[in-house]
Amino acid sequence: MEFEHVKPMDIEKRSMEIIGQELAEMGISLPADKAHIIKRVIHTSADFDYAQTLTFSEDALERATDALKQGASIITDTKMAWSGINKRALENLGGQAYNFISDEDVAAIAKEKGCTRAAASIDKAANLNGPLIFAVGNAPTALIRLHELITEGKLKPALIIGVPVGFVNVVQAKELIMETDVPYIVARGRKGGSNVAAAICNALLYNLDSSRGAKKP
Amino acid sequence: MEFEHVKPMDIEKRSMEIIGQELAEMGISLPADKAHIIKRVIHTSADFDYAQTLTFSEDALERATDALKQGASIITDTKMAWSGINKRALENLGGQAYNFISDEDVAAIAKEKGCTRAAASIDKAANLNGPLIFAVGNAPTALIRLHELITEGKLKPALIIGVPVGFVNVVQAKELIMETDVPYIVARGRKGGSNVAAAICNALLYNLDSSRGAKKP
Repeated sequence: MEFEHVKPMDIEKRSMEIIGQELAEMGISLPADKAHIIKRVIHTSADFDYAQTLTFSEDALERATDALKQGASIITDTKMAWSGINKRALENLGGQAYNFISDEDVAAIAKEKGCTRAAASIDKAANLNGPLIFAVGNAPTALIRLHELITEGKLKPALIIGVPVGFVNVVQAKELIMETDVPYIVARGRKGGSNVAAAICNALLYNLDSSRGAKKP
Repeated sequence: MEFEHVKPMDIEKRSMEIIGQELAEMGISLPADKAHIIKRVIHTSADFDYAQTLTFSEDALERATDALKQGASIITDTKMAWSGINKRALENLGGQAYNFISDEDVAAIAKEKGCTRAAASIDKAANLNGPLIFAVGNAPTALIRLHELITEGKLKPALIIGVPVGFVNVVQAKELIMETDVPYIVARGRKGGSNVAAAICNALLYNLDSSRGAKKP
């Protein structure tokens, strides 16, 4: 089996070409304004299902762009998603990435309320200032808690990236987010993950960083 | 759409039941000694393809178990995979997880050799003492460098978890590892990822930790 001769720096470009070709062969035409996001998720998963399942609220991209330009915070539900976000690209826009899952106060809230640490970490994040982007790749309970705070009028995220993966209440939690008036990017169905959450964040960031000089995480 | 009432602590158990049921409905019967690994990868990806693509060398599980009991180091190619590994479970066995991708000396080696940082980080890891388990979820160049060091007789890993995801040289790099006499767990084809690499590490660890008292990352 022969290797393709591609320089390290050109691998991503070549990958995106292959993804574009294969989507065309499948007869799938991506919306031009969202192609960079959908292709990056396929790039991170090698799973073309996302061309069908990734669902965007009408205002998602505009609101996400505005928020990131204003130095939005990105809050993830797992350390893995946090690790995958290009912090340098985010910091270049004045933003920060947060993950509270291992914090002692979050563990205490979770114990007191009998909820997951992922849900408790949403409560902590709700106290942050400035526009908030929530990137949820694992815990449906985080989406359910977001929905509660939103319907109670206590939180108004700039964007929810709702892409948890799993078999219990994952599908339902995603649909719940799509019923709110909060801008969202959701992977309908069971699939998703911390890698998908991070890839969507990075696609949004790279689209604002025409230089792409930022080192990848 | 109704939510299933499952306590947070029981969600994983319920997920594994669903995965088992659906595999049975598909007529797929997993090898008993590997079911915990394959099911955990499906759990982390919601992708049943892995029931077909995960491939184990004959000695992989025995060698991995021996190595972990001896306090093996696990070296990942990405921070994401490192983040996903249950360090507490690993440390309970006397092992450590490493990721060198952001180290300055690795960046220097990569620049000098004109290789990827992922490949250079394999060279650094080769200097570690004790049994080594490599968990590669992203960079085919890391697998290619492992193959070089193995064939040159400079490295003898206890196990290679070869599950990079992607479109350029990923399939080939995995096949290359399967040609060595080093124990391996490989996801054939394009699919894989840092989440899959971490899930396989954790499945191996949890199988040795009957208490499962270790907190999940």
